Amino acid sequence: MPDTIPNVLAERYASPAMCAIWSGEGKVRLEREYWIAVMKGQNELGLEVPNGVIEDYESVVDQIDLDSIRKREEVTRHDVKARIEEFCALAGHEHIHKGMTSRDLTENVEQLQVLRSLQLIRDRTITALAGMSDLAERTRDRVITARTHNVAAQPTTLGKRISMFGEELLTGLDRINDLLDRYPVRGLKGAVGTQLDQLTLFQGDAQNVAALEKKIVEHLGFSSVLNNVGQVYPRSLDFDVVTALTQLASGPADFCRTLRLMAGHETASEGFAKGQVGSSAMPHKMNSRSCERVNGFHTLLKGYTGMASGLIGDQWNEGDVSCSVVRRVMLPDAFLAMDGLYETYLTILGQFDWFDAVIDRENAHYLPFLATTTLLMNAVSKGAGREEAHEAIKEHAVSTVLDLRKGAISTNNLAERLAKDDRLGLDREEIDRVFSDAKSLTGAAASQIELFRSRVHEIATVFPEAAAYTPGTIL
Amino acid sequence: MPDTIPNVLAERYASPAMCAIWSGEGKVRLEREYWIAVMKGQNELGLEVPNGVIEDYESVVDQIDLDSIRKREEVTRHDVKARIEEFCALAGHEHIHKGMTSRDLTENVEQLQVLRSLQLIRDRTITALAGMSDLAERTRDRVITARTHNVAAQPTTLGKRISMFGEELLTGLDRINDLLDRYPVRGLKGAVGTQLDQLTLFQGDAQNVAALEKKIVEHLGFSSVLNNVGQVYPRSLDFDVVTALTQLASGPADFCRTLRLMAGHETASEGFAKGQVGSSAMPHKMNSRSCERVNGFHTLLKGYTGMASGLIGDQWNEGDVSCSVVRRVMLPDAFLAMDGLYETYLTILGQFDWFDAVIDRENAHYLPFLATTTLLMNAVSKGAGREEAHEAIKEHAVSTVLDLRKGAISTNNLAERLAKDDRLGLDREEIDRVFSDAKSLTGAAASQIELFRSRVHEIATVFPEAAAYTPGTIL
Amino acid sequence: MPDTIPNVLAERYASPAMCAIWSGEGKVRLEREYWIAVMKGQNELGLEVPNGVIEDYESVVDQIDLDSIRKREEVTRHDVKARIEEFCALAGHEHIHKGMTSRDLTENVEQLQVLRSLQLIRDRTITALAGMSDLAERTRDRVITARTHNVAAQPTTLGKRISMFGEELLTGLDRINDLLDRYPVRGLKGAVGTQLDQLTLFQGDAQNVAALEKKIVEHLGFSSVLNNVGQVYPRSLDFDVVTALTQLASGPADFCRTLRLMAGHETASEGFAKGQVGSSAMPHKMNSRSCERVNGFHTLLKGYTGMASGLIGDQWNEGDVSCSVVRRVMLPDAFLAMDGLYETYLTILGQFDWFDAVIDRENAHYLPFLATTTLLMNAVSKGAGREEAHEAIKEHAVSTVLDLRKGAISTNNLAERLAKDDRLGLDREEIDRVFSDAKSLTGAAASQIELFRSRVHEIATVFPEAAAYTPGTIL
Amino acid sequence: MPDTIPNVLAERYASPAMCAIWSGEGKVRLEREYWIAVMKGQNELGLEVPNGVIEDYESVVDQIDLDSIRKREEVTRHDVKARIEEFCALAGHEHIHKGMTSRDLTENVEQLQVLRSLQLIRDRTITALAGMSDLAERTRDRVITARTHNVAAQPTTLGKRISMFGEELLTGLDRINDLLDRYPVRGLKGAVGTQLDQLTLFQGDAQNVAALEKKIVEHLGFSSVLNNVGQVYPRSLDFDVVTALTQLASGPADFCRTLRLMAGHETASEGFAKGQVGSSAMPHKMNSRSCERVNGFHTLLKGYTGMASGLIGDQWNEGDVSCSVVRRVMLPDAFLAMDGLYETYLTILGQFDWFDAVIDRENAHYLPFLATTTLLMNAVSKGAGREEAHEAIKEHAVSTVLDLRKGAISTNNLAERLAKDDRLGLDREEIDRVFSDAKSLTGAAASQIELFRSRVHEIATVFPEAAAYTPGTIL
Repeated sequence: MPDTIPNVLAERYASPAMCAIWSGEGKVRLEREYWIAVMKGQNELGLEVPNGVIEDYESVVDQIDLDSIRKREEVTRHDVKARIEEFCALAGHEHIHKGMTSRDLTENVEQLQVLRSLQLIRDRTITALAGMSDLAERTRDRVITARTHNVAAQPTTLGKRISMFGEELLTGLDRINDLLDRYPVRGLKGAVGTQLDQLTLFQGDAQNVAALEKKIVEHLGFSSVLNNVGQVYPRSLDFDVVTALTQLASGPADFCRTLRLMAGHETASEGFAKGQVGSSAMPHKMNSRSCERVNGFHTLLKGYTGMASGLIGDQWNEGDVSCSVVRRVMLPDAFLAMDGLYETYLTILGQFDWFDAVIDRENAHYLPFLATTTLLMNAVSKGAGREEAHEAIKEHAVSTVLDLRKGAISTNNLAERLAKDDRLGLDREEIDRVFSDAKSLTGAAASQIELFRSRVHEIATVFPEAAAYTPGTIL
Repeated sequence: MPDTIPNVLAERYASPAMCAIWSGEGKVRLEREYWIAVMKGQNELGLEVPNGVIEDYESVVDQIDLDSIRKREEVTRHDVKARIEEFCALAGHEHIHKGMTSRDLTENVEQLQVLRSLQLIRDRTITALAGMSDLAERTRDRVITARTHNVAAQPTTLGKRISMFGEELLTGLDRINDLLDRYPVRGLKGAVGTQLDQLTLFQGDAQNVAALEKKIVEHLGFSSVLNNVGQVYPRSLDFDVVTALTQLASGPADFCRTLRLMAGHETASEGFAKGQVGSSAMPHKMNSRSCERVNGFHTLLKGYTGMASGLIGDQWNEGDVSCSVVRRVMLPDAFLAMDGLYETYLTILGQFDWFDAVIDRENAHYLPFLATTTLLMNAVSKGAGREEAHEAIKEHAVSTVLDLRKGAISTNNLAERLAKDDRLGLDREEIDRVFSDAKSLTGAAASQIELFRSRVHEIATVFPEAAAYTPGTIL
Repeated sequence: MPDTIPNVLAERYASPAMCAIWSGEGKVRLEREYWIAVMKGQNELGLEVPNGVIEDYESVVDQIDLDSIRKREEVTRHDVKARIEEFCALAGHEHIHKGMTSRDLTENVEQLQVLRSLQLIRDRTITALAGMSDLAERTRDRVITARTHNVAAQPTTLGKRISMFGEELLTGLDRINDLLDRYPVRGLKGAVGTQLDQLTLFQGDAQNVAALEKKIVEHLGFSSVLNNVGQVYPRSLDFDVVTALTQLASGPADFCRTLRLMAGHETASEGFAKGQVGSSAMPHKMNSRSCERVNGFHTLLKGYTGMASGLIGDQWNEGDVSCSVVRRVMLPDAFLAMDGLYETYLTILGQFDWFDAVIDRENAHYLPFLATTTLLMNAVSKGAGREEAHEAIKEHAVSTVLDLRKGAISTNNLAERLAKDDRLGLDREEIDRVFSDAKSLTGAAASQIELFRSRVHEIATVFPEAAAYTPGTIL
Repeated sequence: MPDTIPNVLAERYASPAMCAIWSGEGKVRLEREYWIAVMKGQNELGLEVPNGVIEDYESVVDQIDLDSIRKREEVTRHDVKARIEEFCALAGHEHIHKGMTSRDLTENVEQLQVLRSLQLIRDRTITALAGMSDLAERTRDRVITARTHNVAAQPTTLGKRISMFGEELLTGLDRINDLLDRYPVRGLKGAVGTQLDQLTLFQGDAQNVAALEKKIVEHLGFSSVLNNVGQVYPRSLDFDVVTALTQLASGPADFCRTLRLMAGHETASEGFAKGQVGSSAMPHKMNSRSCERVNGFHTLLKGYTGMASGLIGDQWNEGDVSCSVVRRVMLPDAFLAMDGLYETYLTILGQFDWFDAVIDRENAHYLPFLATTTLLMNAVSKGAGREEAHEAIKEHAVSTVLDLRKGAISTNNLAERLAKDDRLGLDREEIDRVFSDAKSLTGAAASQIELFRSRVHEIATVFPEAAAYTPGTIL
């Protein structure tokens, strides 16, 4: 007998709240509640259930024995049938699942798991946004050297950089909210989607069938229901869900990737918990392992996107279960990964640190270069041709850089070189002034940060509990 | 000198309208109009441009020589600079691109291409929905044998099957509309996103900078603009776009895959144009090659989704161009593939054919089995235990099937077998009645079709031109 | 406390042998054996370990308490350190892991898991090939209607169809064997790959360091070792492994997809175990659920390929652990999925069934059409122009098909139509002869099957145990 | 009429040699040569072709008019038939394509394009390896600070780092060579793979059919042929090809990603061509745009891998063309992207530059930390417990780092702190000696480089022309 292998995402990374949605016991409970809701609805609409039967079922809802169910499945080779048998044996009746096909159960319950998970992820997104907003406030005036192509470009502020990734997360939240607003449930549609069996049960009374479905959809908490389906709901809805998660993770993943770069320059760090060891062989190292992990989670999500994309456009007639094993893995694992990503990311936001001394040193080093764009503007506004001025600045900047790198000069003498060049028409004084002002050249950064923070504030006001969540301790 | 290799999607499959958005000349024209819009805006807001300059630029907008631009790029190794030089050389001035970085041009123009393409695809979706709605109307009462797991399950109607795939396409359209409603443009943000250079140009006047950006965003036709960006807009927006297309294609792809299955049973066909040959070696064959092609386009789109997923979560600081070659391929090709898919799909919808004689034969063959679910309902409502009745029907049905397959019996005698079984409590007369009614057991199919058609009707009323589009001739 | 969530692939689908390789306890045991091997090697090469120490470690190898290790990790936030501490605490010494970095342990042990898994999968491939070869033998003379584009094309045999998918599996096996022949292990390379720490331990004696690595590589059972690595081995090796599995699954997946199609025509079936229920609502149905599951496993594998592709080309300097969470999921799950696929596939091969009566009926229906290619050949060899003859046959074949489908004729009168057409120059007698011979027109099918079977025979002779394996009972 | 859209990969990035393999004219030529080879083979084996016919076809092989073919296809809606008609019209005969189905032509010709492209890529790999080997030689003694988790870890050499990525490329080459050794062609197998039509043509003479196939396979230059196929060869072979390319690109992509990181620290640069501008707005910038482009090409290849994975496991019976549009895009584009990647990468290798002054500064900064692993070894070999010593070093290292980052100290005083700690048992003198030796602590780096270089030398000796190739000028 081999050792049990746990789901590594649930075991190591995800929060209890997300694990509860996807655990085996949790799902059996949801199904039983669902069966009872259908039975009650049928009873209310005239399909009488003998006295005491519903109560008997209700009394055993929590007697969940996964091993027993598994043994039944080994006989029937049909998982839903095994769970029907178990529940009926416990209750001592055969009254559930009337007029239902397996998918009338599983599709709706799985969509319920998806819905609740999406809501949880929406909440964690708000937590993350609140954390980023706070951080952006704290770092609003921390001037740093912005980099494009990974090399120094212009000044910006740390708060602006954080707001940039925060705004990407906001666009991800917008998509999640769109999805939550319209995510439709399959409903009680029968074996091929025509509701034939419920209609037969209700002796052709279409109004009763519609009323039953309405009750069930309300029990589940969905706001919208599909009209035309087959055995299954369209798998492109799963694709919508998984790609929404993958998109959502982009803001945090970008932030973490950039933080790994910053750690390489010692300008910032993800922080470290007491007792943590970066590397068993190199004790001084402070590795960005949580940030790396966030990037890893994102890679997982992209893989689940690949799985979801393998399911779409492949429906045969009214459907089959070639998607079954895929969805058993993909749906829980995608949500567990996204949830684990947030637990890790929230921890990073809580421990994020930056190093003024190192940042100041970096700024000083790049100052003159950072200011050349401004010089170019000045030269142009004084009448120089844009292309010629650009060429002049480029020549001197490049040769200054190369001389520094080769050790030909030991201090940056760009100002001197530029002042001598007639193509620019700028004197030394003006150049020096621009260079010394460079640190303040952060443009609209401060007001941009405010725009980010105010949007987050609005959202956090609506979801105060979500905004105030604290992550568990991560491994 | 090698022969030129065309973009095969543009050459063979896409419509002129989509090709026009993504052609080299088309993009250069969009860029030039954009530069002029910026220049005019700057002029109006006080950054005076000498008399006649704007007119000189305007007069050469259409003098597009891609070879000349290419030669410039071979020198500068910078594509935007090459296009600036070309435009300025033609106009005889150096007044465009003031205070702009390359990405202030390319990001916005590329987003414009995306926006216009999305609108075109939205329109083609409406065309497809209108076609499916018409087809669903024409086939509303055509009873067919619904299949799950690719084997006969219950009756449905052809119109219901088409509505099922149509409703999947509607969910895809909902997502496209959500995206169109919120798709935000990067705007004039400068090299690292702080608007520093425009602020410098306008001598620190933030209001003027904001006014200029507003003008430009309006020129482009976007309703929303990002506040916090770096050199680039977040690539997760590209992921949003490409996955929306991939999702959208699912309904048509499912329809086509099912049509390929139906063609294998000769119940339906994608139709054939005059002169077409299914196979050079087997002239009688009528292959579902257009349907296969639609499935192929979907596979391409999934590949572009993979490319888009390779770009997200990989932003370094304020951004770089490691996404450049990817986006040069992925963005046009994803839209060209989606557009080619629609051209093909609309042709299929126009030529779709079904074969009553074959369908009737299939229905007759499966009739007794199709009705067993109803028998089960009847038995249960007359007091039989659900599981026991199910077991009884299963036994007889399976042995009837096997006897037929093995040749042990030549006609279906299921009714006889069931009538003899006490576990069901149903007499022969009742069973025969159910079997002969089976063809009418299509449940709520007709009313479900109406729900689909009325939603399409609503949309088509808003976009009448889109609904009335006729595809070009396909290869 | 949330319920535990098991790894669904291990719990429901994979074999005990594969689970044993990837279980938590299994990995801890492999690591401890590895540490002891290193310690012994160091001792033999002069880095003396006090008497009794090695024995103390050996005596506690099997005292594996994952909870205790987990608690240590919660403190250290470093999984390897936690396992070192646990092992040392149990043994009462601190003598393992000398001169080693974490990755000197984990990389090699994980590659060992990969190697053993690949060997197991190689064996299961041989089992599958043996099963397919047997089936091809049994169905060698069973003429069926070959289909291209899912419509009838020419006759073939069922054995040939199986051999076709079998030969695809053989190409997959070739790749696995290539990989096994060259799969190189990282070895004892130290923190950045320079072997500095072992060199320091051995006071600069490079020969001893090389000798130690050689001992370890032999302990692990690898035939080749990498020379130039950083902290990690190149992740493109993981990509090689996962894509090899994904490719390997193609033959079985193609076979299963085609079997699902055949089941739709009732020509063949995956067979059914006693007690199995196809559908709780439609008892007569015999669904190809195992075949669907095989296709599902393949979709999972494609997703793991996506994850592997997310790891390559992303090495920063000498490496990091952004791949860690990905590999914790991807490596076991890819192998568990592949193993589950084989358990399912071997069951299908064992229960595969075909239905002569149905096949004969299908053949009769398509016979005249199936023979038109031969007629075309005959016409051409008698002097007709290929294109003209093709056109003639096409005309008559298409109109016969359509007349049949529309009910205009009730029996196939293609022969009559063709005999009247001068473009072909064939008389009725000749046509009738070709048509009645059609069933025998299976070309080289029989000898092709023999070529497949003899290659399998060769392989099975080398691996007789693998060829004789019987799968466990599947759910 | 829309502007033509070129294939952007062919137009901007790929070499003339690769473009020639995939151009429209090139393919038509290959097909015509192939038809003639079949016709000649048939003639030699007894299927006489009238005098002069073969010559007439040969005389028009190069009269390739793609527009004319296209017009024919618009009528026939069948691309192969259009090309048959065109060739026959030019030659004035109807003697080609006898006993052939479309796929007897296209499958083999496309596999030929793949084979030749693989050989070209094999050659370019050798060019790249030769370049990396040279670079490794030139930088063999250039000590740099190795980084793991992007932070300083231990010393290594630049040559070792390059060899590390070079050895990854070698493992990719090994896979390409394995593939080239076994890549089997489909051969002349007929419509469903049974060779029926050739057998009919040769009046059942199986030996002649085999002899003809042998001639054709030799004409194409393949060493191995598939025995059991349907209409198509297994698409898992395409997956093998595309994943082999994607894997192969990993070494270059890793090198380029690391070079982008080094550029951020100004320790190395991809070099710059005269006239190049890093950024139109920031003239001094020297962006790693070629390296970014290499990473972009790799993302494209991963997307093509996704497309290839969409084609496998999806064969219906003897095959169809749902893969057609996918392969029209995926096969050329994957090879064009890989080829463009190499053109770019070879340019980078030729211009690669490093900056001793900056590297020396970085080494000095990290020296004491880089040496702590060695100190740990020394302490352990002098009797300290490994874990306790590690803890001590970690404490002091971390606090030194933090004091430096916070500005609490201005010079690194780690040596002083460590000397005072009794847990280590090391005196100041010994510590200082280790620290000052740190630069030499590159372990086995030099000999590892030699192992890489000697393997490359071996290969380059076999393929001297490939090793000596010079890339074209890149954009």
